[in-house]
This record gives sequence, C-alpha cells and structure tokens, in this order.
Amino acid sequence: MTSIPDSSGIPDVFPLEERQAIYRAIYARRDVRHFREDQIPDQVLARIIKAAHQGPSVGFMLIRDLDVRNQVKELCEREQQATACYYDEPRRSHYLSLKLEGIVESSVNLCITYDPTRAEEVLGRNSIRETDVYSTCCTVQNMCLAARAEGIGVGWVSVLKMSQLRKILGIPHHVIPVPTSASATRWNI
Amino acid sequence: MTSIPDSSGIPDVFPLEERQAIYRAIYARRDVRHFREDQIPDQVLARIIKAAHQGPSVGFMLIRDLDVRNQVKELCEREQQATACYYDEPRRSHYLSLKLEGIVESSVNLCITYDPTRAEEVLGRNSIRETDVYSTCCTVQNMCLAARAEGIGVGWVSVLKMSQLRKILGIPHHVIPVPTSASATRWNI
Repeated sequence: MTSIPDSSGIPDVFPLEERQAIYRAIYARRDVRHFREDQIPDQVLARIIKAAHQGPSVGFMLIRDLDVRNQVKELCEREQQATACYYDEPRRSHYLSLKLEGIVESSVNLCITYDPTRAEEVLGRNSIRETDVYSTCCTVQNMCLAARAEGIGVGWVSVLKMSQLRKILGIPHHVIPVPTSASATRWNI
Repeated sequence: MTSIPDSSGIPDVFPLEERQAIYRAIYARRDVRHFREDQIPDQVLARIIKAAHQGPSVGFMLIRDLDVRNQVKELCEREQQATACYYDEPRRSHYLSLKLEGIVESSVNLCITYDPTRAEEVLGRNSIRETDVYSTCCTVQNMCLAARAEGIGVGWVSVLKMSQLRKILGIPHHVIPVPTSASATRWNI
C-alpha cells in the first residue's frame, strides 16, 4: 500500500490512522468463496446493511432458508456447466473445477435489487438510464468494505440467469436483481 | 451512526477505531458540487486513484484542460435545458436552478471508462453482461470513499449525453465512459 504522508493544510481530511483504515479495507477486500461455520451476529449484519444503505436506496433480501439457497446453488451449477460448453479442454475442466460461489456454506445470502419503475423522474436518469445500476453497485461496494472491516467474508455471485433467480426468490419481472450480490457471507477464513 | 460494540470472537475483524473510520467515510460521503480553489497535491490524487484501482481494472482519464472541461460543462448545460422541457412550471424553474455539476470550478475532472471488447471471456460476464458496469461502479465508489477520507470533494456528473462526451474526450465508440465519474474534485467546503 502507498505510504500516507500527513496531508497538512487540507481542511476536513480524516486523521492519518483513519485514512489508513479506509485504505486497508479497500486494499484487503476480496471475493470470498470459502466460509467458516459461525453465524453472523445480527447486530454486525445490521451495521453492514445500514452502511450499504448510505449508498442510494435499493432493496435488500436476506435469504437464510436452506431450500431456497439450494435452488440458487443449483442455478449456478447449471450455469457453470452451460458456460463450460463453450470451452475446449483443458480449459473446460479447469473452469469446471473453479469454486464460483459459497451459497450454501455461508450463513446468509443477500440479494440487492432495484426497481427502475419506482420513480418516473430521477435526476441524472433522464440522460443515463444505467444510473440505476450505478447506484446499486455503490451500495454493494459499501457493503463489501464494511463487511471486510467487520471480518465478514462476502462473495458476489454472478454465474446464474437473472430470470430464473427472479422466479426462485419471487422477485417481480420489473425489478432487477443484482445477482452478484446474492452473496454468501460468513467469517473469512 | 450505529454505535459499534466490540465484535470479540470474530477473527480477522478490524480494530474498533478502524471500523469506525470506515463507517465514517461511508456515512460522510456526499456528492459535491461546490469546490474550493486549491489544487489537489499529486500524491493525494495518486493515492485516491490507486485505491480506486483496487476495484476491477478500468480506464482512467484525468482532464485538467480548461477548454475541454468547458465543452463538457456546455454539454451538461444543454442536457439540463433539454430535460427541463419535460417539466411544467414551477418545477421547470426549480430544476433549472439546481447546480448539477462543478466541472470547471474543480481542479481536475476524472472520466472512468471500461472497454467491453477487451476480453472475450470474463468470469461472470458470460451470464450477466452488466458485470462490466458493476466492476466500474465499485471502482468509482472506492475512489469516492478514499477521496472523502482525504478531504477531497467528488461529484458524479450524469446529466450529459454519452455519445457527445465520447466525442469531446476522444473516446472510441466501443469504450463506455461512466460519465457520472467525469467528476470534478477539489477540497470540500
């Protein structure tokens, strides 16, 4: 990490130790696929989700039900199999050996959603439709950094079909899940 | 902000003070439109951009040229005028009175870009095309949080037409600018 000299003279700068902490979280964040068996205390999970919500407003689904999570996991496995069809050996076997999710091993899954029909006029969205997605991803990154600081592992899950994820989670057609955040969290190992 | 009790027992958790610093940055981040006149020291700017790059790889353009920035500013003004046409009074006047960018007052503009043609096969992108955008936005949020900690104001600029921004900045057609990050940075006031 870059060493951080004192930025004396800049108003409203965080103290050195606080800046170092923020850089540490940014530098140490990783996608996690292997999880410990501990449960996440509710107050830790609440802090992470509250921090995420300091980004723009989106929907949050917490999925603890093992049957639902098994269905999502199966979705990922099918998708990984389907994607592998496009690769030749030895790449195909290598791809199939990759662990791309930790949906069931984790203690909780999160699916972050946004509803583009919710407001007719949103500043910025008149010009760039995708600002919906931008907002959602800022929320996800807030969550990932807060989780990293809390010692909670988070893994984005993007190897699945949105339409089928919607069906499993009961998400209406007009609401967009960011399935990269149908994530699995537990302590890092 | 939620008070943070000690999460004793969680391995790899950051110390209380470090977690507080990260939550502080997340909670205190704002879109900034009014800027001081100071220049940003190069090493501070470098730290922020390096932190942003801990997200997935994207392109960064630093725009200091005042003529170019004036062209981008004009683009935003036209877009604001065009958007106002859809509103009736008194909403129209209110919308036109909003300050939606600080492109020229700031000391530097940043445009973050991604090139969806760069790699044929990217994990996850086979299933969800938008993971490109997801990655780019994580980078932007890293940058915003690092900047907040450094006392640097950042404002996303999304009221403009992508195609015309491309023309002004010389960005090829196949590369996508995230113009919300054609941002203007200077000290917060």
